[in-house]
Amino acid sequence: MMKYLIIGGVAGGMSAATRLRRLDEQAEIIILEKGPYVSFANCGLPYYLAGEISERSDLLVKTAAQLTKRFKLDIRQNSEVTAINRTDQSVTVKTAQGTYQEHYDRLILSTGAQPVVPAIEGLDSAQHVYTLRNVPDVDQILAQAKASQKAVVIGAGFIGLEIAEALVNRGLQVTIVERGTHVLPSFDIEMAMFVQRALVQHGVTVLTENAVTAFEAAGQTLVLANGQTLASDLTILAVGVQPATQLANAAGLQLGLRKGLIVNDHYQTSDPLIYAIGDAIIVKQTTTNQDTLISLASPANRQGRQVADVLAGKNRLNRGSLGTAIVRVFEMAGGSTGLNESQLQAAGLTYQVLHLSGKSHAGYFPGAETIWLKLLFQPQTGELFGAQAVGPDGVDKRIDVLATAIKAGLTVDDLPELELSYAPPFGSAKDIINLAGYAAQNLMAGDSQSVQWHELAAAMAAGAQLVDVREPAEHQQGAIPGAINIPLDDLRQRMSELPKSNHYIVSCASGLRSYLAERILKQNGYQVQNLDGAYALYALMQPKD
Amino acid sequence: MMKYLIIGGVAGGMSAATRLRRLDEQAEIIILEKGPYVSFANCGLPYYLAGEISERSDLLVKTAAQLTKRFKLDIRQNSEVTAINRTDQSVTVKTAQGTYQEHYDRLILSTGAQPVVPAIEGLDSAQHVYTLRNVPDVDQILAQAKASQKAVVIGAGFIGLEIAEALVNRGLQVTIVERGTHVLPSFDIEMAMFVQRALVQHGVTVLTENAVTAFEAAGQTLVLANGQTLASDLTILAVGVQPATQLANAAGLQLGLRKGLIVNDHYQTSDPLIYAIGDAIIVKQTTTNQDTLISLASPANRQGRQVADVLAGKNRLNRGSLGTAIVRVFEMAGGSTGLNESQLQAAGLTYQVLHLSGKSHAGYFPGAETIWLKLLFQPQTGELFGAQAVGPDGVDKRIDVLATAIKAGLTVDDLPELELSYAPPFGSAKDIINLAGYAAQNLMAGDSQSVQWHELAAAMAAGAQLVDVREPAEHQQGAIPGAINIPLDDLRQRMSELPKSNHYIVSCASGLRSYLAERILKQNGYQVQNLDGAYALYALMQPKD
Repeated sequence: MMKYLIIGGVAGGMSAATRLRRLDEQAEIIILEKGPYVSFANCGLPYYLAGEISERSDLLVKTAAQLTKRFKLDIRQNSEVTAINRTDQSVTVKTAQGTYQEHYDRLILSTGAQPVVPAIEGLDSAQHVYTLRNVPDVDQILAQAKASQKAVVIGAGFIGLEIAEALVNRGLQVTIVERGTHVLPSFDIEMAMFVQRALVQHGVTVLTENAVTAFEAAGQTLVLANGQTLASDLTILAVGVQPATQLANAAGLQLGLRKGLIVNDHYQTSDPLIYAIGDAIIVKQTTTNQDTLISLASPANRQGRQVADVLAGKNRLNRGSLGTAIVRVFEMAGGSTGLNESQLQAAGLTYQVLHLSGKSHAGYFPGAETIWLKLLFQPQTGELFGAQAVGPDGVDKRIDVLATAIKAGLTVDDLPELELSYAPPFGSAKDIINLAGYAAQNLMAGDSQSVQWHELAAAMAAGAQLVDVREPAEHQQGAIPGAINIPLDDLRQRMSELPKSNHYIVSCASGLRSYLAERILKQNGYQVQNLDGAYALYALMQPKD
Repeated sequence: MMKYLIIGGVAGGMSAATRLRRLDEQAEIIILEKGPYVSFANCGLPYYLAGEISERSDLLVKTAAQLTKRFKLDIRQNSEVTAINRTDQSVTVKTAQGTYQEHYDRLILSTGAQPVVPAIEGLDSAQHVYTLRNVPDVDQILAQAKASQKAVVIGAGFIGLEIAEALVNRGLQVTIVERGTHVLPSFDIEMAMFVQRALVQHGVTVLTENAVTAFEAAGQTLVLANGQTLASDLTILAVGVQPATQLANAAGLQLGLRKGLIVNDHYQTSDPLIYAIGDAIIVKQTTTNQDTLISLASPANRQGRQVADVLAGKNRLNRGSLGTAIVRVFEMAGGSTGLNESQLQAAGLTYQVLHLSGKSHAGYFPGAETIWLKLLFQPQTGELFGAQAVGPDGVDKRIDVLATAIKAGLTVDDLPELELSYAPPFGSAKDIINLAGYAAQNLMAGDSQSVQWHELAAAMAAGAQLVDVREPAEHQQGAIPGAINIPLDDLRQRMSELPKSNHYIVSCASGLRSYLAERILKQNGYQVQNLDGAYALYALMQPKD
């Protein structure tokens, strides 16, 4: 009879335990969980903080008692493993009652990730500064939120933004301090700006390219890098997570990238009797095959099941991760899959960018919302590298379809062929994903050439003439300086106003009408490019005062 | 300069025209449209009838004037082509002002499909009997609906059900008469029954395996095949559509399956100067490569663009169609992609069926709805054949992901690997699509064996003992006759009550707990199968009085 020890009883650990039981009714399966709860809804914590999940008990998806009975598990909460003793195949377990050794035949590490706590002056003596990772954390934060007026969230990643929204919902005045140039560092800046705008519209102060350098007055005053100070009754540290591998490291297991655990395709660490899964391990990014760390619930759960399959003798391989993620920030959703521009640059990959906007479902049916989609692909082969989307509705669906397409190795040429479900309440006869494929084909064929928002100033400085093909009323409400206005439907008649010796860039509201203008001009012998994302992206990226 | 004539100015025809213009600024492009409108929202008609789309003008997505100006098109409405004169490359056009000939260099047929009008006794003299295909149709139906109390919809396909719902919304008492065994003939019966139940719950009378055999009293009385009569103030014929190929046939173009137009991969008919797209053409079904007819807006639009690409000299091929569709029926959505069981049987393909239910998003987050998913796949290779899903939310997303997976040639082994966007408002850490992959792997590995709802009676007659592993309270509220009740969590203790000589079938509410029971029993040496879809499907398929 095999004896399995699993360290960590949340996503991956509990998936491994229950799958092991389904495959091996006789095995001894012991779960050692440091905290008071197993199988809790980690991703639900910010929504409980917000009050959207009203019952605390809803966070406890399965209780230890239920799991014990159904899966014949030996679940030990409040049991912290303090050492792995590889030579005698045991772990040292610390509980309130004392310390003991537990033998294993196979050990599974599902220790997860832990919040990074930055070294900030005065942090040690600061009060009401929290990280959010488990139920006791959220209990503390909620109690303090009820007694607070002003909150500061340090870090604008997924969890930081979810907490910021939650605290706004609780009536607090919230400031976000982010070191990078924009919120959601895993997004490219212009896509993140749609989300940042929603935060600002809901009264959140967003301070980017800034940092908290010191806590003063026992944490009630935060000093920023730019010298400014912020008052705070409640401060959240959400600057990211790191693999919780101290235990593995102490046991001499091999670590790699950012102290993540190195495992082989079968989740085996450098000790063949010890396996590891979840946020603690290094995985291969699907496209680049490079090492990466991914702290997401879905891969952790999948890996938990797969390691159980491996241990039960099934041929199951870790096939890597794309890294698909989504966040809701007030009425906006922001989703991404695959690689973003900075990751593509780091990997040395040549890529083409494409932005387009479309509707969540048929425009003539009530409730259609605008989605902005960014596609990244290889300009010669059409290989799909990544996608980002933002909007109030339908973002998850588009990201999921594109994640599936990337996983399957489809190219932009396949996107028009995708037969997506269409009826007016659900989609469009030409879904934005199909349209993205068409637009990419146009770029690859040279039927269209684009200029990105960040390339515009240089192109105009080099002499390009910008032509705004929107209607005069739209132009008057706000236009890019230096643009001349010739509405699309007048372009054929007024083309003679444009000397052929010039180089032109066409723009409209979103990039659709300007593409039509580009085609008219190109076929009339003009040198012309389309401003990708057009005035919408341009305006979004202008500094606000 | 090329002169293109396009017959039909709605989905495919207008897509072809506008793409042609974008690729060829000089070409002469004439669109001949029989009706008064081009580019109208065909799929929006039932929602206008329902009052959900309140403005009639919203149905007219683009007007002829707008399209003419923007794309330099020659759009001729109320212009019916009565003949194609292939020898002199012209068509005969009939208008209110008379008849004329128009020459073409290339002709594109986008004549679509037309409603099948069944030969029913008394139909000729019946009043207030309509089909719904265009704006004048919906104007007539709406006018009559406002003066009606009772309506009968003949045919329970997508359009029939959308019209039935619309008429209920208008306050009418609606009866649906369907010749087949269930509504939504493109779905398998048990999946269609979820939708049928929603219709009944909203007061619609659904008469299946029945037909209208005669109209009496000028259409106010409908005689049914079973002798019953129905009073009707308004009758809709929605028994299906057929390719509108009379014109092509008269011109001697080659027709095939159900009088659909035969075209090659480049949309060329048997006359190399004549191309055809949309509902009128025969396409290859992606999986079987067999001829099929698909009357859907998305393929028509894609084909319109592609035929323009072909005519402009681009290498673009018709790569066939899967046939993805969705319908909203009151609060339920029903979506499907690929092949259903009857199509698989007709194609002679061996398949495995799998049903499972899951939540539209994390169960602990407010608003999670139940989705039922049916997956059809090759039991040895895991090739994905088709999927059907029903539920109030998230059906479109799952069908779109699966349509993408099928198109990409993924297998059930790839489904657990799909990295779908997860945050509690949008999905689950293990999405129902991932779970479907796991369940399929279990079946393929022999870790689970299933019995379908329609196989249960025979299996029990052959001596199988049904074990209901739900809680006693659930069992008492309704159970399958002959089942004994041993709750899952008691099974290990009470296993001795089950003689090993028997063959067992386990069941619960949805099939999840019974799968766990199956694993416990199997590993203890029992011969056991899991009732796929469990009591939920069983109860759904019981005859109602």
